Amino acid sequence: MLPARLVTPIPGSEHLETRNRSEAKLSDHNMRIELRELGSHVGDEVVIEGWVQTVRAHAKVAFVVVRDGTGLVQAVMGRQDVDPATWEAATTVTQESTLVVTGTVRKEPRAPGGYEIGVSRFTVLAPGGEFPIQPKEHGVDFLLDHRHLWLRSTQQRAILRVRAEVEQAIHDYFYERGFVRIDTPILTGAIGESAGTLFETDYFGERAFLAQTGQLYVEAAAAAFRKVYCFGPTFRAEKSKTRRHLTEFWMLEPEVAFADSNDNMRLQEDLLTYLVQRALERCGEELTVLERDTTLLERVRPPFPRVSYTEAVARLQAAGSSIQWGEDLGAEDETKLAAYELPVFIYNYPREAKAFYMKENPDDPRTVLCNDLLAPEGYGEIIGGSQREDDLDKLLARIREEHLPEAAYNWYLDLRRYGTFPHSGFGLGLERTVAWITGRHHVRELIPFPRMLHRLTP
Amino acid sequence: MLPARLVTPIPGSEHLETRNRSEAKLSDHNMRIELRELGSHVGDEVVIEGWVQTVRAHAKVAFVVVRDGTGLVQAVMGRQDVDPATWEAATTVTQESTLVVTGTVRKEPRAPGGYEIGVSRFTVLAPGGEFPIQPKEHGVDFLLDHRHLWLRSTQQRAILRVRAEVEQAIHDYFYERGFVRIDTPILTGAIGESAGTLFETDYFGERAFLAQTGQLYVEAAAAAFRKVYCFGPTFRAEKSKTRRHLTEFWMLEPEVAFADSNDNMRLQEDLLTYLVQRALERCGEELTVLERDTTLLERVRPPFPRVSYTEAVARLQAAGSSIQWGEDLGAEDETKLAAYELPVFIYNYPREAKAFYMKENPDDPRTVLCNDLLAPEGYGEIIGGSQREDDLDKLLARIREEHLPEAAYNWYLDLRRYGTFPHSGFGLGLERTVAWITGRHHVRELIPFPRMLHRLTP
Repeated sequence: MLPARLVTPIPGSEHLETRNRSEAKLSDHNMRIELRELGSHVGDEVVIEGWVQTVRAHAKVAFVVVRDGTGLVQAVMGRQDVDPATWEAATTVTQESTLVVTGTVRKEPRAPGGYEIGVSRFTVLAPGGEFPIQPKEHGVDFLLDHRHLWLRSTQQRAILRVRAEVEQAIHDYFYERGFVRIDTPILTGAIGESAGTLFETDYFGERAFLAQTGQLYVEAAAAAFRKVYCFGPTFRAEKSKTRRHLTEFWMLEPEVAFADSNDNMRLQEDLLTYLVQRALERCGEELTVLERDTTLLERVRPPFPRVSYTEAVARLQAAGSSIQWGEDLGAEDETKLAAYELPVFIYNYPREAKAFYMKENPDDPRTVLCNDLLAPEGYGEIIGGSQREDDLDKLLARIREEHLPEAAYNWYLDLRRYGTFPHSGFGLGLERTVAWITGRHHVRELIPFPRMLHRLTP
Repeated sequence: MLPARLVTPIPGSEHLETRNRSEAKLSDHNMRIELRELGSHVGDEVVIEGWVQTVRAHAKVAFVVVRDGTGLVQAVMGRQDVDPATWEAATTVTQESTLVVTGTVRKEPRAPGGYEIGVSRFTVLAPGGEFPIQPKEHGVDFLLDHRHLWLRSTQQRAILRVRAEVEQAIHDYFYERGFVRIDTPILTGAIGESAGTLFETDYFGERAFLAQTGQLYVEAAAAAFRKVYCFGPTFRAEKSKTRRHLTEFWMLEPEVAFADSNDNMRLQEDLLTYLVQRALERCGEELTVLERDTTLLERVRPPFPRVSYTEAVARLQAAGSSIQWGEDLGAEDETKLAAYELPVFIYNYPREAKAFYMKENPDDPRTVLCNDLLAPEGYGEIIGGSQREDDLDKLLARIREEHLPEAAYNWYLDLRRYGTFPHSGFGLGLERTVAWITGRHHVRELIPFPRMLHRLTP
């Protein structure tokens, strides 16, 4: 019923029509295509648009590699086949110049992408100028300052394509399983976790904070839809300057009514397996570009190993660590514990180390029913989850113990006043997860426009 | 490969297991199911969990309608079939109490949803308390103050399910057509549109603003991927208190390289048709609950009528309006112009009425290549789009004309310095679009937790 492609023949395209009529004299039968469609146009005369990646000019033949964002193609031109002006244009054109090229598609196994275009018309729509990013090593600050241009580079495009694939996979996973997506607010009067790390804004005379989590809201929605999730930007005004911190990052937060901590861990390992397999199936080219060793990723399958916090401490102590029960695990401890081929769950931490809303463990009230999920290969924590405290009195006691503003949580407490229910959920950090999948060590490359301490532009 | 459902048999579910062992004595063969799955369990003994919607108790038989967020079912209990304590529990249970019910699924055309459960065990997990929202008329402020509970009501659930369906349809539409999703930043140092309506926050000593649009960023990404889109929350610190304004709302912004204003309108009508048809196909029940007359929605198909701004002014004048060429169209004017069965494009507005980044119309430089899309039935503008100015000098002149901070736009101008390219895009307001599809007149019901002037909680 609906056309599968956006692209259409030139007629009706006013702007290009004008330009092309005068400059390239395109005839009506020419078809504009995207480079990802080359394979189904072998033998056709097509029109492509894009940017110059590289130029190689010999005495009698010139090769211009064109990138259009969906693929690459080598445009080939024989000196005797074109007029002198066209030859001049093609052999002097610079990197990132914008082109419209007409020509015939041919199979050519030696060309990047496997096809080439025998050029009949070649129009430079705009010059590339002195493109700041050259095929040489640039410092990371320079690249981040030019993030709007750096996005065009092969590796950055590969990384962001994997990100986009994982995002679509997240939506598909939950949609197919009957979860209802719930968009939770960013502007909030309530306070989710530690107030010291919140961005604040004036809201028509009131104080508002940028949400660090949508959890409290998805808990409310779980009573309406049973299984829900939110997925959106999240904010932490942390001064951390590490390879694992962004001030604005994307977080997935599913919440499931009548699910306990075990159900919760099963959902996490099932989801993560799905995301990894989907990236492997559909982003093979990108992972090759990124030189990702996918051997371990291919083995990701449930169940993941589970180690209780108490057992983890005993193991660390046996290995010579001075950690005491009750202390939080450090990054080094986590690396030791994640020495599996699979991601590993560390579950049931001491309540003092965790947030007020986590449910007391009936088998050991010193601990709460929660888990972290640590990625292998040193990528560290990518998920934190818990069963939520559904007992009104226990939750109130925790809020008071932590001196949290009780009034701000009144609506949240309502969920325990009216038909309280067992429920669990978790938060998955998108950038950290995709860092692991793509094998990148710094989260700044996993988001199109990273926000970090002292980095607010572009 | 992966299980299609989250639900699993009770064993392994620690918390519920403990509770149920003592309270409901579930045997291992009982299956926990979601109510949406009832149809494939006729004749089975199942365990369901949910909340009490209504109770009807007669002398010898009691009916408890249970809602679990995925569906409804009537639990039926004969007085002689259960022990006195169970009968007492079932006949005195109140609205929103949390239940675990074991019983056998039967077809029953007279029951809501078409099935019923013959109860063998009935456990009240938690009382409903005095649920604030009763089946009577409440004022809208009361309902908004109780939004965390109001979400459970039949109409609100229907509305938010349509919203979630349209969101998934958005992602599917662009994914299937090879667009790359690009998440644009919320925290930004640059200034998109009018600075007076921005929320501001301190960013480690710098001033940051909450983005009103991701457009400038998707323009940069269009040079890397050709076709991109962003979809996320957007902020306007407007004091407007109308049925069409939220301070935080969701916006979809596609951007396409080598697309002109005509391509752009074609993409808009194709997308909108897809979204409407998908809601009709997959949300029939919800639209019935909302008593939406779908006659006009069913006719939504491209092409949509197109009226130039200049023609629109002439028409309004002919109908007696005092509007002069150059003035912006008012809401009343828009209603008159949208008197079609289909959405209608108004295109090529005077440049003074529109943003600096819109491309000058070569056929009439008083105007720019842009469009609004007005929904029928009085729902007003749901999309605004334009071809972008790709000429560096013209764009710079516009920035200076409007006294915008040139330095803040330096990176954006880079896109015109290095391989500039024709490109177009638009912004679709999600809540306004779903308001039209669901036939709701106030956008506050179209988002789970609305943010408006003087409304920041819950």
